[in-house]
Amino acid sequence: MDYKITLNSNEVPKKWYNINADLPVELPMPKNSEGNDQISSLQKAFTKVGLEQEFSTERFIKIPKDVRKLYMQMGRPSPLFRATKLEEYLDTPAKIYYKREDTSPTGSHKLNSAIPQAYFAKKEGIERLTTETGAGQWGTALSLACNLLDLECTVYMVKVSFQQKPDRKSIMNIYNGNVFASPSENTKVGREILAQNPNHPGSLGVAISEAMEEALENEKVKYTLGSVLNHVMLHQTIIGQELKKQLEIAGEEPDIMIACAGGGSNFAGSLFPFIKDKIADKSDTQFIAVEPSACPTLTKGSYEYDFGDVNGFTPMLKMFTLGHDFVAPSVHAGGLRYHGMSPQVSLLTKEGYIEPRSAHQRDVFEAGITFARNEGVLPAPETTHAIKVAIDEALKCKQTGEEKTIVMNFSGHGMLDLKGYASYFEGSMPNSK
Amino acid sequence: MDYKITLNSNEVPKKWYNINADLPVELPMPKNSEGNDQISSLQKAFTKVGLEQEFSTERFIKIPKDVRKLYMQMGRPSPLFRATKLEEYLDTPAKIYYKREDTSPTGSHKLNSAIPQAYFAKKEGIERLTTETGAGQWGTALSLACNLLDLECTVYMVKVSFQQKPDRKSIMNIYNGNVFASPSENTKVGREILAQNPNHPGSLGVAISEAMEEALENEKVKYTLGSVLNHVMLHQTIIGQELKKQLEIAGEEPDIMIACAGGGSNFAGSLFPFIKDKIADKSDTQFIAVEPSACPTLTKGSYEYDFGDVNGFTPMLKMFTLGHDFVAPSVHAGGLRYHGMSPQVSLLTKEGYIEPRSAHQRDVFEAGITFARNEGVLPAPETTHAIKVAIDEALKCKQTGEEKTIVMNFSGHGMLDLKGYASYFEGSMPNSK
Repeated sequence: MDYKITLNSNEVPKKWYNINADLPVELPMPKNSEGNDQISSLQKAFTKVGLEQEFSTERFIKIPKDVRKLYMQMGRPSPLFRATKLEEYLDTPAKIYYKREDTSPTGSHKLNSAIPQAYFAKKEGIERLTTETGAGQWGTALSLACNLLDLECTVYMVKVSFQQKPDRKSIMNIYNGNVFASPSENTKVGREILAQNPNHPGSLGVAISEAMEEALENEKVKYTLGSVLNHVMLHQTIIGQELKKQLEIAGEEPDIMIACAGGGSNFAGSLFPFIKDKIADKSDTQFIAVEPSACPTLTKGSYEYDFGDVNGFTPMLKMFTLGHDFVAPSVHAGGLRYHGMSPQVSLLTKEGYIEPRSAHQRDVFEAGITFARNEGVLPAPETTHAIKVAIDEALKCKQTGEEKTIVMNFSGHGMLDLKGYASYFEGSMPNSK
Repeated sequence: MDYKITLNSNEVPKKWYNINADLPVELPMPKNSEGNDQISSLQKAFTKVGLEQEFSTERFIKIPKDVRKLYMQMGRPSPLFRATKLEEYLDTPAKIYYKREDTSPTGSHKLNSAIPQAYFAKKEGIERLTTETGAGQWGTALSLACNLLDLECTVYMVKVSFQQKPDRKSIMNIYNGNVFASPSENTKVGREILAQNPNHPGSLGVAISEAMEEALENEKVKYTLGSVLNHVMLHQTIIGQELKKQLEIAGEEPDIMIACAGGGSNFAGSLFPFIKDKIADKSDTQFIAVEPSACPTLTKGSYEYDFGDVNGFTPMLKMFTLGHDFVAPSVHAGGLRYHGMSPQVSLLTKEGYIEPRSAHQRDVFEAGITFARNEGVLPAPETTHAIKVAIDEALKCKQTGEEKTIVMNFSGHGMLDLKGYASYFEGSMPNSK
């Protein structure tokens, strides 16, 4: 048997799949909060093509030739693995597959959107992209993408993270990214905050403000986001399209498909091309989105209009949210600490196509370690959430004897998250988070 | 065109290639130093099959079915990539290929020998394997291999490294390895050293002594090594055999093949199957072994009998050596700091089949960064040595206009070596090393 299913470079999809064309009800539009016009400023901050894609309802959008070539040069398509050692260990009749986005050079799926965002900016004559980063995966991917496309890249990293994660700064420097601890002296908003408190620890909200300010004040600079927005979900659908082909080669029809969800990009990217069939009533696959119980957006949030950021700079989006002033506890899965959720993922959850679940921190780390001990590959803390549910479902099959096919998206590796694993072994990790 | 050449699981080689069958002159045997019998103790410390393979002259040795299955389950064959972005950047007519051993779950080629060593031990009724680790790649691979084969694993890690590299300890713990700072209280030699100096910083020599003492004093325990010895080179030849097939698919006959060399295992594994053809006068490929100028074993050492370790516990091996009491400066490429070299690699260098080169630390890091900025993949400090020479050769082709095919073994990734890169950016890295 084949333990992995690889595709050739020329099997990278030629189009992105846009679920806007197939949503069961219309996606509510972003809106301004009373007395404000965040939509106009956001429009100024983003690239033209990014905005077009954000609101497009075309089902398939052509991937530019040069973007497709870069996907290939960065190693796509990513392989699909069968977790036979894990199946043996769990003694389950279920089959478990995992799509390996960790094989991207930057270690996660984020490069799939960073490359086209940098490409469209370059085409529009932009010289520099800005962004903010918390956990660091998006900042890393954008740094590399900008270097590949000969753009400058400025990353505002929350000061506390900047100080606690020197390795993240190093890897962004390697990829030619300019990383600044936020609040910084680069921007008005940064300087004002530092004037009041030179030791301000920073926050994602402040970092967003700094990154956006640069884009709003310089026409050669644009702002980028690595999740939540429709055009980011769109770019990520190359994962799910590849996965579809690979499952066909394996002769599998998945019973359960699982991905973790923070802002929604890895979930949407890997599963929207399958959810399409469910909306068309051609599939009865179960789709599970997994989030930390410390930040239970889909499981405990409410579906309503809220700001995308803490400060109310962004338009209001209709989505599951814990409130834009929600401060998630400091879990190791930094990529899953967002108060909101992609409006598309939110709507599909609301409509019952996606089943949300939450998991506790110690439990997901335990699942991650079980996975690593059997399959070898070390998952990122975000990815361990999907693994936890895959293992739960495989163990249910052991009880019932069902030979289900379980497929998960392995969103990234944990090589830069070993401190989290160390705290698990030291016993200093509470399970309540 | 295809930017990568992948093989299916069932294309993992069925046999290891043993260069002992084809060496141009006979390999000098290990010998005891005067008045000692290190050969007998080494024989007690290793598995039976390991020893058989060490002295075998059979050209091809069958890979046990279960070992081959584990190779597949851990993701082999590894892909071959064409470095098109790097070629563009260098503006060279040369073609550059790299075989990606970094795609192994533990991040380097080391698992290729850890799996069979653990397998043979298990078959012989052994319950636990011991080893020492400096840089940590071998200890990581052995921890995982032991867990896969249901063996215990004890790793003695030089105390200084243990304290400086908590991430390495964490990853070995994840793979269920028991890691001890050496000198430890576990062994007689450790306790004696600690009695004299409780703050002893440890050394590779002490760690070897501790790991060997356990194997010599308990018949259920065996000692393992991750490089230098013939049977380790043998196991690694799956790399080169896969690579041969991949280059055939690409329609390439390499002009230059490059690998870094510390103890010799990644060099031998990737290139022996090609050097075989050169010995048989069927190839004029140039083979280059790259080492740090801080530890210039092949370029400045002498070819003579010397101990494999600092303390003289091992038999004497005929090899290139800087003297067993040579202390290499503290370079970031911890895997290339060994005073000696695989006797097989040494003999082939002596006989002119392998061309050794050395490179300075700042230069190799610079090459590694150039590589990462173009190809995305972040190399281990060891691997950057091969990259430096690949870039040098590609730039020579730019001068001469020659369209050479350059192939290198990308032995491992640098995700756990970001401190080394940080010191490059901080400017605190001297070039003299």
